[in-house]
Amino acid sequence: MLKNAIVGQSGGPTSVINASLAGVFKTARDLGLTHIYGMRNGIEGLLSERYVDLGDYIKNDVDIELLKGTPSAFLGSCRYKLPHLDKDEDIYKKLFGILEKLDIGYFFYIGGNDSMDTIAQLALYAERINSEIRFIGVPKTIDNDLVITDHTPGFGSAAKYVATSIKEIIRDGRVYDNNAVSIIEIMGRDAGWLTGSAALSTGPDCSGPDLIYLPEIVFDVDSFISRVEEVQRARRSVIVCVSEGIRTSDGNYVCEYTHDASRTIDAFGHKQLTGTARVLGDVVKERLGCKVRAIEFSLLQRCAAHMQSETDVKEAFHVGVAAARAAMDGETGKVIIIKREGEEPYQSTMGSCDVHLIANYKKDVPREWINEAGDYVLEEFISYARPLISGETTPVVVNGLPRHIENI
Amino acid sequence: MLKNAIVGQSGGPTSVINASLAGVFKTARDLGLTHIYGMRNGIEGLLSERYVDLGDYIKNDVDIELLKGTPSAFLGSCRYKLPHLDKDEDIYKKLFGILEKLDIGYFFYIGGNDSMDTIAQLALYAERINSEIRFIGVPKTIDNDLVITDHTPGFGSAAKYVATSIKEIIRDGRVYDNNAVSIIEIMGRDAGWLTGSAALSTGPDCSGPDLIYLPEIVFDVDSFISRVEEVQRARRSVIVCVSEGIRTSDGNYVCEYTHDASRTIDAFGHKQLTGTARVLGDVVKERLGCKVRAIEFSLLQRCAAHMQSETDVKEAFHVGVAAARAAMDGETGKVIIIKREGEEPYQSTMGSCDVHLIANYKKDVPREWINEAGDYVLEEFISYARPLISGETTPVVVNGLPRHIENI
Repeated sequence: MLKNAIVGQSGGPTSVINASLAGVFKTARDLGLTHIYGMRNGIEGLLSERYVDLGDYIKNDVDIELLKGTPSAFLGSCRYKLPHLDKDEDIYKKLFGILEKLDIGYFFYIGGNDSMDTIAQLALYAERINSEIRFIGVPKTIDNDLVITDHTPGFGSAAKYVATSIKEIIRDGRVYDNNAVSIIEIMGRDAGWLTGSAALSTGPDCSGPDLIYLPEIVFDVDSFISRVEEVQRARRSVIVCVSEGIRTSDGNYVCEYTHDASRTIDAFGHKQLTGTARVLGDVVKERLGCKVRAIEFSLLQRCAAHMQSETDVKEAFHVGVAAARAAMDGETGKVIIIKREGEEPYQSTMGSCDVHLIANYKKDVPREWINEAGDYVLEEFISYARPLISGETTPVVVNGLPRHIENI
Repeated sequence: MLKNAIVGQSGGPTSVINASLAGVFKTARDLGLTHIYGMRNGIEGLLSERYVDLGDYIKNDVDIELLKGTPSAFLGSCRYKLPHLDKDEDIYKKLFGILEKLDIGYFFYIGGNDSMDTIAQLALYAERINSEIRFIGVPKTIDNDLVITDHTPGFGSAAKYVATSIKEIIRDGRVYDNNAVSIIEIMGRDAGWLTGSAALSTGPDCSGPDLIYLPEIVFDVDSFISRVEEVQRARRSVIVCVSEGIRTSDGNYVCEYTHDASRTIDAFGHKQLTGTARVLGDVVKERLGCKVRAIEFSLLQRCAAHMQSETDVKEAFHVGVAAARAAMDGETGKVIIIKREGEEPYQSTMGSCDVHLIANYKKDVPREWINEAGDYVLEEFISYARPLISGETTPVVVNGLPRHIENI
């Protein structure tokens, strides 16, 4: 008789991470599994035996469609990284004890780098103790910084949100006839994929941002200011996109630059929070004296499911499907990857690769996809990213708002 | 022979202000006018004779549809308020000189409170000099704070954006199993309509925000903190929505509370920008010690045309239509208003009213639509706002992004 499956979600939310959950669930069920469990808050919750039987919550195809359009991890998430196998075997014994109790044969973990490390460790331990449980990683991250896979589910929708919102902000920013600088901060602490996708906004109806700064390039405040001045001579309203993770040549994050000073206390008696856009906005205001606006997309860029890319949702679902099939075909210690098969029209297929080749590695935006000055992305970047934001979903709307699946 | 028309846009952008422009243009053209001019940057631009012939830019019905879906003022905007008639008659002479040169018979101004004052002054001056030019105000503001009209175009789409985004943020904010407070800052310095619409997110699939603070209610930091603590005992992740314009009992804006302290200088040597959510986030962090996230919707709430309310677009277009008809029917010194005619189904008609009854007045959220504690809106508010966010538009999408009309 077939064993049961368990699936967890880990790391930062995306607007399509639940589409992967839906893909795993639907395929495992279609392939005949009776119980498909969901870990609450990832491996951390599982360690406290917090799980649900997903069949109690996903009862029909409508639920599956709602789940695909619901942002953020349906099962809850965690930022817990398993200790190395040789440092704490007890935790592995405990975990495998729980898995055996639930008669688990297939274990799926949807997440980014750290989550793939979890899969690697678990598969290693399974081998060591001759367990037959199969461990498969399902990639997801808006940062798009996993190696080997062409891109990661979550990135396309986040990029669509970023490019659309920037297009709208550029319209708004140019409405007054005055000198102004808008600085827009975008997620991706270590890789500039999402920030670079701001350039997708450029077209016959939009001039796009004027400057784009990625974390792959050392940030220099003085050249930044002179570039802003230069652009301002040509057009009065300047639009700058910056990654939250840009650093100066000494390795410090730009957003850390206020920490020293903010030891000072505000009127309520508290230290202040800061962000990269805010720090740079202060510099522009001081040096150029013009109107400045600092905008953070904050959580919305990763949870704006109303702006899903259809391509992204489909692929997120399919990596889930491929994960379930791979596990039931006997694979373990693998991560599902997306392979780009064609450009016009864009096509992709799913594959799998050894988890050790992916876990703990990071993919930067290639230097040759960034202009020489280091303040914009080139056509290669655009061609790569453009198809990933294509297509729109038609969410279920009730009372004027997208309907999500009900919470657990 | 029919005279020409001129139309301008003024004040803050909305995502449907161009739908009103489209309504004025299409109707004036259908009624046989040859030249329909557009002021660049409102009355301020007109004073420098900066205008375009709109027929050069809006050439067919596709352009009209694109215009309806394009956010922010297509003609550019200004924040210029005409001086009082008795203080500077010269500027009026100059303006009327320009209008006569263009053979203008109909003058339309799309904007909020200040723009309606412009209409009032111009109509008064026209009467004084026996000019036959007719002046009609077309309401728009995401703040929804104009009197007499049931609501203002722009509000519904902004409210839809706010409610949808909050629904998504709540999902995201509850993903980790930890104590956290998210504070979301919403526009509307003087009136809480938009902030209150955060409550629309509540439904079977969403618990909605926990606390909502409007500028109509005096803000008390200590009660705020104890309410947050109270909510946190029931659920770990607390979602608070605040208007940017909340003030303490001494009349100071909460966002001003850091100004005294921020005389101190950051590492780059500059004063810091602050916001209400940030100030409150700092207080929560200090007093409760939990994870805090301050989120500003910033410009997006007023320019996110990808999230237009169909009801709002239609009404924005219709106030434009009604304005053109009213002017050509001989009305002047009037503002178009929206009258709510039915609830289920929601229905509205257009009317007009004397501009002096609207200009310089402000409509607050009624006290009886806010709960006794002053930290949430009541069912009356919800019933009022709900129909205004209903319906979705299907934007023209090219390469995965909404297509806008090309810039002038």
